[in-house]
Amino acid sequence: MQPQVSRLEFRDAMARVCAPVNIVTTDGPAGRGGFTATAMCSVSDDPPTLLICMNERSAQTAMFLDNRRFCVNVLTQAHMHLASKFAGAIRDMAERYQAANWQTMPSGMPALLDAIVSFDCEIGDVNKVGTHNVMFGRVIDIRHGSGEAALLYVDRNYSQPKALGSFGG
Amino acid sequence: MQPQVSRLEFRDAMARVCAPVNIVTTDGPAGRGGFTATAMCSVSDDPPTLLICMNERSAQTAMFLDNRRFCVNVLTQAHMHLASKFAGAIRDMAERYQAANWQTMPSGMPALLDAIVSFDCEIGDVNKVGTHNVMFGRVIDIRHGSGEAALLYVDRNYSQPKALGSFGG
Repeated sequence: MQPQVSRLEFRDAMARVCAPVNIVTTDGPAGRGGFTATAMCSVSDDPPTLLICMNERSAQTAMFLDNRRFCVNVLTQAHMHLASKFAGAIRDMAERYQAANWQTMPSGMPALLDAIVSFDCEIGDVNKVGTHNVMFGRVIDIRHGSGEAALLYVDRNYSQPKALGSFGG
Repeated sequence: MQPQVSRLEFRDAMARVCAPVNIVTTDGPAGRGGFTATAMCSVSDDPPTLLICMNERSAQTAMFLDNRRFCVNVLTQAHMHLASKFAGAIRDMAERYQAANWQTMPSGMPALLDAIVSFDCEIGDVNKVGTHNVMFGRVIDIRHGSGEAALLYVDRNYSQPKALGSFGG
Protein backbone atom coordinates (compact mmCIF):
# COMPACT_ATOMS: atom_id res chain seq x y z
CA MET A 1 0.00 0.00 0.00
CA GLN A 2 1.28 3.43 -0.87
CA PRO A 3 2.30 5.55 2.13
CA GLN A 4 0.40 8.77 2.62
CA VAL A 5 1.96 12.10 3.56
CA SER A 6 -0.27 14.63 5.29
CA ARG A 7 -0.03 18.38 4.76
CA LEU A 8 1.28 18.75 8.31
CA GLU A 9 3.95 16.08 7.89
CA PHE A 10 5.09 17.75 4.67
CA ARG A 11 5.18 21.23 6.26
CA ASP A 12 7.10 19.95 9.30
CA ALA A 13 9.64 18.18 7.07
CA MET A 14 10.07 21.23 4.82
CA ALA A 15 10.61 23.38 7.92
CA ARG A 16 13.80 21.36 8.46
CA VAL A 17 15.16 22.48 5.08
CA CYS A 18 17.29 25.62 5.41
CA ALA A 19 16.28 28.33 2.92
CA PRO A 20 17.48 31.80 1.99
CA VAL A 21 14.90 34.53 2.63
CA ASN A 22 13.83 36.93 -0.13
CA ILE A 23 11.45 39.83 -0.54
CA VAL A 24 9.73 39.65 -3.91
CA THR A 25 8.46 43.02 -5.15
CA THR A 26 6.37 44.29 -8.03
CA ASP A 27 5.16 47.66 -9.30
CA GLY A 28 3.14 48.71 -12.31
CA PRO A 29 -0.39 49.44 -13.54
CA ALA A 30 -1.88 46.91 -11.11
CA GLY A 31 -0.15 48.50 -8.12
CA ARG A 32 2.85 48.02 -5.86
CA GLY A 33 3.24 44.78 -3.95
CA GLY A 34 5.79 42.79 -2.01
CA PHE A 35 6.00 39.64 0.07
CA THR A 36 8.56 37.48 1.87
CA ALA A 37 9.34 34.21 0.13
CA THR A 38 11.68 31.28 0.62
CA ALA A 39 10.35 29.31 -2.38
CA MET A 40 12.71 30.71 -5.02
CA CYS A 41 14.95 28.65 -7.25
CA SER A 42 17.45 29.11 -10.07
CA VAL A 43 16.24 27.33 -13.21
CA SER A 44 18.47 28.00 -16.24
CA ASP A 45 21.27 30.33 -17.31
CA ASP A 46 20.23 30.27 -20.98
CA PRO A 47 18.14 32.30 -20.97
CA PRO A 48 18.73 33.44 -17.37
CA THR A 49 15.62 32.21 -15.55
CA LEU A 50 14.48 31.68 -11.97
CA LEU A 51 11.16 30.76 -10.42
CA ILE A 52 9.08 31.75 -7.43
CA CYS A 53 6.10 29.97 -5.91
CA MET A 54 3.17 32.08 -4.74
CA ASN A 55 0.11 30.90 -2.84
CA GLU A 56 -2.89 31.25 -5.12
CA ARG A 57 -4.97 32.62 -2.26
CA SER A 58 -2.59 35.55 -1.71
CA ALA A 59 -4.36 38.87 -2.24
CA GLN A 60 -1.35 39.95 -4.31
CA THR A 61 -1.51 37.16 -6.91
CA ALA A 62 -3.56 39.14 -9.47
CA MET A 63 -1.31 42.18 -9.03
CA PHE A 64 1.84 40.20 -9.81
CA LEU A 65 0.24 38.45 -12.79
CA ASP A 66 -1.13 41.75 -14.17
CA ASN A 67 2.15 43.66 -13.79
CA ARG A 68 3.91 40.71 -15.41
CA ARG A 69 7.13 41.67 -13.62
CA PHE A 70 8.76 41.03 -10.28
CA CYS A 71 12.07 41.57 -8.52
CA VAL A 72 13.63 39.00 -6.16
CA ASN A 73 15.66 40.72 -3.41
CA VAL A 74 17.94 38.33 -1.51
CA LEU A 75 18.06 39.39 2.16
CA THR A 76 20.95 39.73 4.61
CA GLN A 77 20.85 39.00 8.35
CA ALA A 78 20.24 42.75 8.83
CA HIS A 79 16.77 42.27 7.28
CA MET A 80 15.28 39.99 9.94
CA HIS A 81 12.65 42.53 10.98
CA LEU A 82 11.95 43.59 7.40
CA ALA A 83 11.34 39.95 6.42
CA SER A 84 8.69 39.66 9.13
CA LYS A 85 7.00 42.90 8.02
CA PHE A 86 6.72 41.66 4.43
CA ALA A 87 5.59 38.25 5.71
CA GLY A 88 2.45 39.87 7.12
CA ALA A 89 3.40 41.52 10.43
CA ILE A 90 2.42 44.75 8.65
CA ARG A 91 -0.49 44.62 6.21
CA ASP A 92 -0.29 48.17 4.76
CA MET A 93 1.95 48.14 1.68
CA ALA A 94 3.08 51.79 1.98
CA GLU A 95 4.12 51.11 5.57
CA ARG A 96 6.05 47.99 4.52
CA TYR A 97 7.97 49.98 1.92
CA GLN A 98 8.70 52.81 4.37
CA ALA A 99 10.59 50.34 6.56
CA ALA A 100 13.50 50.11 4.06
CA ASN A 101 15.42 51.97 1.33
CA TRP A 102 14.70 51.21 -2.32
CA GLN A 103 16.12 51.94 -5.72
CA THR A 104 13.87 51.90 -8.76
CA MET A 105 15.29 49.68 -11.49
CA PRO A 106 15.08 50.89 -15.14
CA SER A 107 12.12 48.50 -15.46
CA GLY A 108 10.31 50.30 -12.62
CA MET A 109 10.73 47.40 -10.18
CA PRO A 110 11.64 48.31 -6.56
CA ALA A 111 15.07 46.90 -5.65
CA LEU A 112 16.01 46.75 -1.97
CA LEU A 113 19.09 48.96 -1.66
CA ASP A 114 21.09 46.70 0.68
CA ALA A 115 19.94 43.31 -0.58
CA ILE A 116 22.76 40.87 -1.39
CA VAL A 117 21.54 40.82 -4.98
CA SER A 118 18.31 41.76 -6.79
CA PHE A 119 17.00 39.86 -9.81
CA ASP A 120 14.68 41.95 -12.01
CA CYS A 121 12.39 39.59 -13.92
CA GLU A 122 9.71 39.47 -16.60
CA ILE A 123 7.09 36.83 -15.86
CA GLY A 124 7.02 34.08 -18.47
CA ASP A 125 5.13 30.82 -18.00
CA VAL A 126 2.96 30.41 -14.93
CA ASN A 127 2.04 26.88 -13.80
CA LYS A 128 -0.63 26.19 -11.25
CA VAL A 129 0.51 23.30 -9.03
CA GLY A 130 -1.74 22.43 -6.10
CA THR A 131 -2.26 25.55 -3.98
CA HIS A 132 0.49 27.59 -5.66
CA ASN A 133 1.34 29.38 -8.86
CA VAL A 134 4.87 28.67 -10.05
CA MET A 135 5.96 31.85 -11.84
CA PHE A 136 8.98 31.61 -14.13
CA GLY A 137 10.92 34.87 -14.28
CA ARG A 138 13.19 35.76 -17.18
CA VAL A 139 16.01 37.76 -15.54
CA ILE A 140 16.50 41.01 -17.47
CA ASP A 141 18.57 42.99 -14.96
CA ILE A 142 20.69 42.35 -11.87
CA ARG A 143 21.70 44.73 -9.08
CA HIS A 144 24.46 43.91 -6.60
CA GLY A 145 24.09 45.37 -3.11
CA SER A 146 25.39 44.31 0.29
CA GLY A 147 28.27 41.97 1.08
CA GLU A 148 26.72 41.01 4.44
CA ALA A 149 25.85 37.45 5.41
CA ALA A 150 22.62 35.96 4.08
CA LEU A 151 19.40 35.69 6.06
CA LEU A 152 18.33 32.06 6.31
CA TYR A 153 15.24 30.38 7.73
CA VAL A 154 15.40 26.88 9.19
CA ASP A 155 13.45 25.05 11.91
CA ARG A 156 11.15 28.12 11.93
CA ASN A 157 13.98 30.40 13.10
CA TYR A 158 16.34 32.84 11.41
CA SER A 159 19.98 31.89 10.83
CA GLN A 160 23.00 33.04 8.90
CA PRO A 161 25.65 30.96 7.11
CA LYS A 162 28.95 30.15 8.82
CA ALA A 163 31.85 29.02 6.60
CA LEU A 164 32.89 25.39 6.98
CA GLY A 165 36.44 26.05 5.78
CA SER A 166 37.93 25.00 2.49
CA PHE A 167 37.22 21.59 1.08
CA GLY A 168 40.31 19.43 0.97
CA GLY A 169 38.88 16.17 -0.40
CA MET B 1 16.70 50.01 -24.02
CA GLN B 2 16.25 46.78 -22.11
CA PRO B 3 19.29 45.73 -20.07
CA GLN B 4 20.84 42.43 -21.00
CA VAL B 5 22.04 39.85 -18.51
CA SER B 6 24.72 37.43 -19.69
CA ARG B 7 24.92 33.79 -18.61
CA LEU B 8 28.07 34.61 -16.62
CA GLU B 9 26.48 37.58 -14.84
CA PHE B 10 23.51 35.41 -13.92
CA ARG B 11 25.70 32.55 -12.67
CA ASP B 12 27.87 34.91 -10.61
CA ALA B 13 24.79 36.54 -9.06
CA MET B 14 23.18 33.17 -8.27
CA ALA B 15 26.44 32.02 -6.66
CA ARG B 16 25.79 34.71 -4.05
CA VAL B 17 22.48 33.07 -3.07
CA CYS B 18 22.93 30.61 -0.20
CA ALA B 19 21.36 27.23 -0.92
CA PRO B 20 20.89 23.94 0.93
CA VAL B 21 22.66 21.00 -0.74
CA ASN B 22 20.78 17.83 -1.64
CA ILE B 23 21.54 14.49 -3.24
CA VAL B 24 18.71 13.46 -5.53
CA THR B 25 18.52 9.71 -6.12
CA THR B 26 16.53 7.36 -8.31
CA ASP B 27 16.29 3.61 -8.84
CA GLY B 28 14.13 1.43 -11.04
CA PRO B 29 13.93 -0.29 -14.42
CA ALA B 30 16.08 2.42 -16.05
CA GLY B 31 18.85 2.03 -13.48
CA ARG B 32 20.18 3.65 -10.32
CA GLY B 33 21.24 7.29 -10.42
CA GLY B 34 22.09 10.18 -8.16
CA PHE B 35 23.38 13.73 -8.37
CA THR B 36 24.02 16.73 -6.15
CA ALA B 37 21.53 19.56 -6.54
CA THR B 38 20.83 22.91 -4.97
CA ALA B 39 17.91 23.76 -7.28
CA MET B 40 15.14 22.25 -5.17
CA CYS B 41 12.07 24.08 -3.96
CA SER B 42 8.90 23.44 -1.98
CA VAL B 43 5.83 24.09 -4.15
CA SER B 44 2.58 23.15 -2.40
CA ASP B 45 1.38 21.25 0.65
CA ASP B 46 -1.90 20.18 -1.02
CA PRO B 47 -0.98 17.82 -2.50
CA PRO B 48 2.54 17.77 -0.99
CA THR B 49 4.75 18.76 -3.93
CA LEU B 50 8.32 19.93 -4.50
CA LEU B 51 10.37 20.52 -7.61
CA ILE B 52 13.91 19.90 -8.78
CA CYS B 53 15.69 21.39 -11.80
CA MET B 54 17.94 19.10 -13.85
CA ASN B 55 20.20 20.06 -16.71
CA GLU B 56 18.81 18.56 -19.89
CA ARG B 57 22.31 17.55 -20.99
CA SER B 58 22.84 15.42 -17.89
CA ALA B 59 23.47 11.77 -18.83
CA GLN B 60 20.99 10.84 -16.06
CA THR B 61 17.99 12.77 -17.41
CA ALA B 62 16.45 9.84 -19.31
CA MET B 63 16.97 7.53 -16.34
CA PHE B 64 15.07 9.85 -13.98
CA LEU B 65 12.27 10.43 -16.48
CA ASP B 66 11.94 6.69 -17.20
CA ASN B 67 11.92 5.63 -13.54
CA ARG B 68 9.37 8.41 -12.88
CA ARG B 69 10.50 8.57 -9.25
CA PHE B 70 13.17 10.35 -7.27
CA CYS B 71 14.17 10.94 -3.66
CA VAL B 72 15.51 14.30 -2.40
CA ASN B 73 18.01 13.77 0.46
CA VAL B 74 18.78 16.98 2.38
CA LEU B 75 22.45 16.94 3.42
CA THR B 76 24.18 17.82 6.70
CA GLN B 77 27.59 19.43 7.10
CA ALA B 78 28.97 15.88 7.56
CA HIS B 79 28.21 15.25 3.86
CA MET B 80 30.61 17.79 2.34
CA HIS B 81 32.75 15.10 0.67
CA LEU B 82 29.72 13.05 -0.37
CA ALA B 83 28.21 16.11 -2.05
CA SER B 84 31.35 16.53 -4.16
CA LYS B 85 31.35 12.85 -5.13
CA PHE B 86 27.74 13.06 -6.38
CA ALA B 87 28.54 16.37 -8.08
CA GLY B 88 30.96 14.57 -10.40
CA ALA B 89 34.21 14.04 -8.47
CA ILE B 90 33.41 10.34 -8.92
CA ARG B 91 31.76 9.22 -12.15
CA ASP B 92 31.05 5.58 -11.34
CA MET B 93 27.60 5.27 -9.77
CA ALA B 94 28.35 2.13 -7.72
CA GLU B 95 31.37 3.89 -6.25
CA ARG B 96 29.29 6.96 -5.40
CA TYR B 97 26.77 4.80 -3.53
CA GLN B 98 29.51 2.89 -1.69
CA ALA B 99 30.61 6.16 -0.11
CA ALA B 100 27.52 6.35 2.14
CA ASN B 101 24.86 4.28 3.93
CA TRP B 102 21.41 3.95 2.41
CA GLN B 103 17.98 2.68 3.30
CA THR B 104 15.61 1.48 0.61
CA MET B 105 12.23 3.18 0.90
CA PRO B 106 9.06 1.08 0.34
CA SER B 107 8.98 2.66 -3.13
CA GLY B 108 12.47 1.31 -3.88
CA MET B 109 14.10 4.75 -3.77
CA PRO B 110 17.50 4.98 -2.01
CA ALA B 111 17.28 7.26 1.05
CA LEU B 112 20.53 8.51 2.57
CA LEU B 113 20.55 7.12 6.13
CA ASP B 114 21.84 10.25 7.87
CA ALA B 115 20.21 12.93 5.71
CA ILE B 116 18.27 15.59 7.61
CA VAL B 117 15.16 14.49 5.78
CA SER B 118 14.39 12.49 2.62
CA PHE B 119 11.43 13.25 0.36
CA ASP B 120 10.32 10.25 -1.72
CA CYS B 121 8.55 11.54 -4.85
CA GLU B 122 6.63 10.43 -7.90
CA ILE B 123 7.42 12.59 -10.92
CA GLY B 124 4.39 14.52 -12.16
CA ASP B 125 4.61 17.33 -14.70
CA VAL B 126 7.96 18.05 -16.31
CA ASN B 127 8.53 21.49 -17.88
CA LYS B 128 11.45 22.25 -20.12
CA VAL B 129 12.69 25.77 -19.38
CA GLY B 130 15.83 26.88 -21.21
CA THR B 131 18.60 24.36 -20.51
CA HIS B 132 16.77 22.57 -17.70
CA ASN B 133 13.89 20.24 -17.01
CA VAL B 134 11.78 21.31 -14.06
CA MET B 135 10.47 18.08 -12.53
CA PHE B 136 7.54 18.34 -10.14
CA GLY B 137 7.60 15.62 -7.50
CA ARG B 138 4.51 14.49 -5.64
CA VAL B 139 5.79 13.60 -2.15
CA ILE B 140 4.50 10.14 -1.21
CA ASP B 141 6.81 9.31 1.69
CA ILE B 142 9.12 11.12 4.12
CA ARG B 143 12.01 9.78 6.18
CA HIS B 144 13.55 11.75 9.05
CA GLY B 145 17.24 11.20 9.72
CA SER B 146 19.95 13.32 11.29
CA GLY B 147 19.55 16.31 13.59
CA GLU B 148 22.90 17.74 12.48
CA ALA B 149 23.32 21.19 10.92
CA ALA B 150 22.51 21.61 7.24
CA LEU B 151 25.10 21.69 4.48
CA LEU B 152 24.85 24.97 2.59
CA TYR B 153 26.59 26.30 -0.51
CA VAL B 154 27.23 30.01 -1.00
CA ASP B 155 29.89 32.03 -2.81
CA ARG B 156 31.09 28.67 -4.21
CA ASN B 157 31.99 27.37 -0.73
CA TYR B 158 30.33 25.12 1.81
CA SER B 159 28.73 26.63 4.91
CA GLN B 160 26.40 25.67 7.74
CA PRO B 161 23.66 27.71 9.41
CA LYS B 162 24.34 29.55 12.65
CA ALA B 163 21.33 30.67 14.71
CA LEU B 164 20.69 34.42 14.84
CA GLY B 165 18.86 34.18 18.14
CA SER B 166 15.16 34.63 18.68
CA PHE B 167 13.29 37.38 16.90
CA GLY B 168 11.92 39.98 19.29
CA GLY B 169 10.23 42.34 16.80
